[in-house]
Amino acid sequence: MKYLINMMYDGSELNGYATQPNKNTVQDEIERILSKMLNCDIKTFGASRTDARVHALNQYATFELEKELDCQGIMRGLNAQIKPAIKIKSIKQVDQSFNPRYDVVDKVYEYHVMTEYNPFKRRYAFHQKKKIDIKQMEEACQYIVGTHDFTSFCNTNTEVIDKVRTVKDLKIEQSSDGFKIVVKGNGFLYNMVRIIAGTLISVGEGRIKADAITGILEAKDRTVAPKTMPPEGLFLVEINY
Amino acid sequence: MKYLINMMYDGSELNGYATQPNKNTVQDEIERILSKMLNCDIKTFGASRTDARVHALNQYATFELEKELDCQGIMRGLNAQIKPAIKIKSIKQVDQSFNPRYDVVDKVYEYHVMTEYNPFKRRYAFHQKKKIDIKQMEEACQYIVGTHDFTSFCNTNTEVIDKVRTVKDLKIEQSSDGFKIVVKGNGFLYNMVRIIAGTLISVGEGRIKADAITGILEAKDRTVAPKTMPPEGLFLVEINY
Repeated sequence: MKYLINMMYDGSELNGYATQPNKNTVQDEIERILSKMLNCDIKTFGASRTDARVHALNQYATFELEKELDCQGIMRGLNAQIKPAIKIKSIKQVDQSFNPRYDVVDKVYEYHVMTEYNPFKRRYAFHQKKKIDIKQMEEACQYIVGTHDFTSFCNTNTEVIDKVRTVKDLKIEQSSDGFKIVVKGNGFLYNMVRIIAGTLISVGEGRIKADAITGILEAKDRTVAPKTMPPEGLFLVEINY
Repeated sequence: MKYLINMMYDGSELNGYATQPNKNTVQDEIERILSKMLNCDIKTFGASRTDARVHALNQYATFELEKELDCQGIMRGLNAQIKPAIKIKSIKQVDQSFNPRYDVVDKVYEYHVMTEYNPFKRRYAFHQKKKIDIKQMEEACQYIVGTHDFTSFCNTNTEVIDKVRTVKDLKIEQSSDGFKIVVKGNGFLYNMVRIIAGTLISVGEGRIKADAITGILEAKDRTVAPKTMPPEGLFLVEINY
């Protein structure tokens, strides 16, 4: 039988989603506790790798087991033993053919920015100190939306060959003390959302022009796109299957 | 000249407001940096002592100095050097007679409770796992509002003699995933808000009756009132002068 876990986590004190030699990742935590509870070696298969300090409101992973499980009981047991930074939202049985990574229709990420510093948000938003022109950022979004080779927007430390992805929607949502960049796509490369955020912020600060993005995409060269934003502003919000 | 500092802080990694031998308090941070910036030994006088892990949206302190200061410049310097958990909101000159503790008209505290666990709120709200009857809590508020001897609602580790205080307003504000207890008073004893919160929650859980509060107040005995709630849900919201 195959089971699907839906979870959320505050990544600020975690080493990311995927297992690491020094542990303290979401995957390590879940596998450690599930293996103990079920008295066998459980391996999970996650939908999306998130980096250290990145947050998730909805992340998914599957695991397989011969026997029928009391999903509610397992969820309660996991939540009782897991680090308080992680919450299991549901566990349910899924079809054997279900693949949490390849069956994704699209994902939504948000990058949170505070223009006014708030100590309560320091783990959950980037602090933008320089003045920023939201109108210019909105103008820039249109150059990123669509199907492109996103090589310039991908950390070079990757084994992925095909770097063509479709950004279905990209917008800026303003609030009283900052804004968030909301992006929906069929898939994202390593650091892609944080490089998109860095590019939009560079446009907003007037360091590059909105229409320079076309050239950045065409260059297919990571060194021509602006810097990768720090992890704490990034949220994996939604994965649609 | 006397100067008034208005500040906010995320108390989750601080040892409270008032100076401690092991440091890491708001007062220690401010005095250390002000003394360095102004090149003399600055002592501050705080409005309200908050315990370790308690938060403040508006806290106040005064300090004195012979010379005229560039308040904006001092504020920027403080914010650049202080721990990111603390933010100075303003610094202004006040009348020599102003006393941040004795000139208080009233203070507002909130105690935040989540009925549904959210890892992002774990440093900022108490997680209430047991079912709770908000109507009963609201009923209980009326027994606390008013001028009473609050000895039963005061940590015995205090040097304060007069324990008569006036609770001007006390209410429960519900939200989709919890509630907050909002209390306004002319002054609060050591742990008083956290004991009021513990008492209201005991009523909400059905462990004591709302009208038992009259007897608890009359007993003037800390051991008859319910337990002190943990610090992470508590916010000093407002001090009115």
